[in-house]
Amino acid sequence: MKDMTNLDQFDVGFDIPAKPGMAEADIQTPALVLDLDALERNIKKMGDYAKAHGMRHRVHGKMHKSVDVAKLQEELGGAVGVCCQKVSEAEVFARGGIKDILVSNQVRDPQKLDRLAQLPNLGARTIVCVDDLANVAELSEAAQKHGTTIECLVEIDCGAGRCGVTTTEAVVEIAKAIEAAEGLKFTGIQAYQGAMQHIDSFEARKEMLDIAIAQVSEAVEALKAEGISCELVSGGGTGSYYFESNSGVYNELQCGSYAFMDADYGRILDEKGQRIDRGEWENAFFILTQVMSHAKADKAICDAGLKAQSVDSGLPVIFGRDDVEYVKCSDEHGVIADPQGALKVGEKLRLVPGHCDPTANVHDWYVGVRNGQVECVWPVSARGRAY
Amino acid sequence: MKDMTNLDQFDVGFDIPAKPGMAEADIQTPALVLDLDALERNIKKMGDYAKAHGMRHRVHGKMHKSVDVAKLQEELGGAVGVCCQKVSEAEVFARGGIKDILVSNQVRDPQKLDRLAQLPNLGARTIVCVDDLANVAELSEAAQKHGTTIECLVEIDCGAGRCGVTTTEAVVEIAKAIEAAEGLKFTGIQAYQGAMQHIDSFEARKEMLDIAIAQVSEAVEALKAEGISCELVSGGGTGSYYFESNSGVYNELQCGSYAFMDADYGRILDEKGQRIDRGEWENAFFILTQVMSHAKADKAICDAGLKAQSVDSGLPVIFGRDDVEYVKCSDEHGVIADPQGALKVGEKLRLVPGHCDPTANVHDWYVGVRNGQVECVWPVSARGRAY
Repeated sequence: MKDMTNLDQFDVGFDIPAKPGMAEADIQTPALVLDLDALERNIKKMGDYAKAHGMRHRVHGKMHKSVDVAKLQEELGGAVGVCCQKVSEAEVFARGGIKDILVSNQVRDPQKLDRLAQLPNLGARTIVCVDDLANVAELSEAAQKHGTTIECLVEIDCGAGRCGVTTTEAVVEIAKAIEAAEGLKFTGIQAYQGAMQHIDSFEARKEMLDIAIAQVSEAVEALKAEGISCELVSGGGTGSYYFESNSGVYNELQCGSYAFMDADYGRILDEKGQRIDRGEWENAFFILTQVMSHAKADKAICDAGLKAQSVDSGLPVIFGRDDVEYVKCSDEHGVIADPQGALKVGEKLRLVPGHCDPTANVHDWYVGVRNGQVECVWPVSARGRAY
Repeated sequence: MKDMTNLDQFDVGFDIPAKPGMAEADIQTPALVLDLDALERNIKKMGDYAKAHGMRHRVHGKMHKSVDVAKLQEELGGAVGVCCQKVSEAEVFARGGIKDILVSNQVRDPQKLDRLAQLPNLGARTIVCVDDLANVAELSEAAQKHGTTIECLVEIDCGAGRCGVTTTEAVVEIAKAIEAAEGLKFTGIQAYQGAMQHIDSFEARKEMLDIAIAQVSEAVEALKAEGISCELVSGGGTGSYYFESNSGVYNELQCGSYAFMDADYGRILDEKGQRIDRGEWENAFFILTQVMSHAKADKAICDAGLKAQSVDSGLPVIFGRDDVEYVKCSDEHGVIADPQGALKVGEKLRLVPGHCDPTANVHDWYVGVRNGQVECVWPVSARGRAY
């Protein structure tokens, strides 16, 4: 595994939490730690699944925001490229050498359109989503200005309630406009059901995906009737990829969280009623934290609070421990209930954060560990790229 | 106002959201925007209050993590220096020229102790909190190793339930140990009641602070009886500073949020029952966001989601608008209820985030605006410095 960054210029502590060769115990906390064995197994497993089901796998780069992880997903998991949500993220991935990039989102701002149209000049196939006829002219103008081609997916809102059109008529209308526009290419459909991914029950998820698949299927057929074919029908996440893969309509997955896992996703159930973090996927992504105060007998204070994670999907879970519980989170402190006084000041713990995507986004570095040693330190290359 | 960073090396969009001289309307979104007039008025007001009450004001740098804002607080608000929560933050402030720094937290890790002891070599008076006898020997060893002096405040847990001792006996015991330790100086008491700051009712806050003041007062008297005097008795936040200032015990404030304000703090009430963001303090801190999709008639989608803010203390509020409401937040999208279809794609809105501290921590830049123009772009200098 190559490390893309020369770390010699940085001081451990001030600039980075660790350097390759250090013991895991010496990592400066709080820090993001990747269990490289678990990460590689997750990546390989999803890659094998996609291959066995004839699906392209466009990994969701907005989850990890890391060129290094994306390249590992290409290498070990046969990923065809990435999707991401922002033009600024796409720029990072393109500059980092990713060759097939979908901005799975709408781009409307004049400066962002201009930057998007320049991505092909960095060597990346550039695809974007469209949910508004007016956007077609904007994209076409930007592509013509730079002499590039922007590929377009019409986005269907298949239940997430965010961007996307809701009728087959609108899909066909926008697809035709894309086909007719200079500098653009109609490439297919984007349909990601984001609202069902975190619902615990497998059956409830299936029900919602069935509706989405029917909606997408109708749109694809309507386009075919107009002589318009979809090269890509893209969507699917960690809580649904088996539905899209067996739909006969989708041909591309967009999974993200499977590679890292988090506490909120881990709680959803597979077909057999088992938590997906108890067999389907391994926890590979942790916040390493340290106990910094234990002035009260039954309460330990650790150094990972709101500045080290996002708690939008619940508090973190302490990995591998049933005797202690992370019960409260303030800016820079985590309160850990320690009824038996089991923890000592200085002790380090692995936290499984509630939500991996926004947690990765507050850190600058991933510290990759194997067998208790730091093997690599990777930048969170697109951290903060929200514009 | 000086800008500490040469921005010419960066591209707008890829690296930074704006450059000085641009119109506010052209800022790339989502971005943190500071209303400089409001910020300056807030800073001056708190500075005047502290001066009138004979209080030192050590502004809380962990809130904004910005050397530029801290210097403005020294310049316009008479701040004596900063407090912050992490050694890595203290390093940034010391390197940036702040001369009086309190790490208002426990430092226990060997590498962090070693770094803390080197801060005086950067020209900064260095103060830290202690809540454990064992920590005294650790700090003393680090200070002696580097030939520096670390000043110590004994931290009292006066209700926040995080770090800090809870008995006067423990305060006296630790203070004596500090006095006796080579390389250390006993400087006083840290007592910040963090749990009451966000309680709406003024009377309920007063009740909790009265208990805290009595606790601190007892400790100060007990120390005096032992011949130990407190140079500093430090604490107080935006929801309580008037209590500490009139306590006769505290002589130093540690306010942070007053400078920026946020939606959660804004809801607490002053003595007259008025929200503190309706007179006491002005909203000076915003997320500028843009509508990027309006495919459903009554729902606009904006580009500021969980990667642009922390929602631990509630969703953001749309500034100056009663007709639209931010109702849902996912990774990169905000859903805005727009029952009258008032918003247009491309329109920009100012959001008041729920919680300013962890929201600042996900951004790289503050864009300072005045009269619709970008006046300065300041780095969030200690962003991500959590270790």
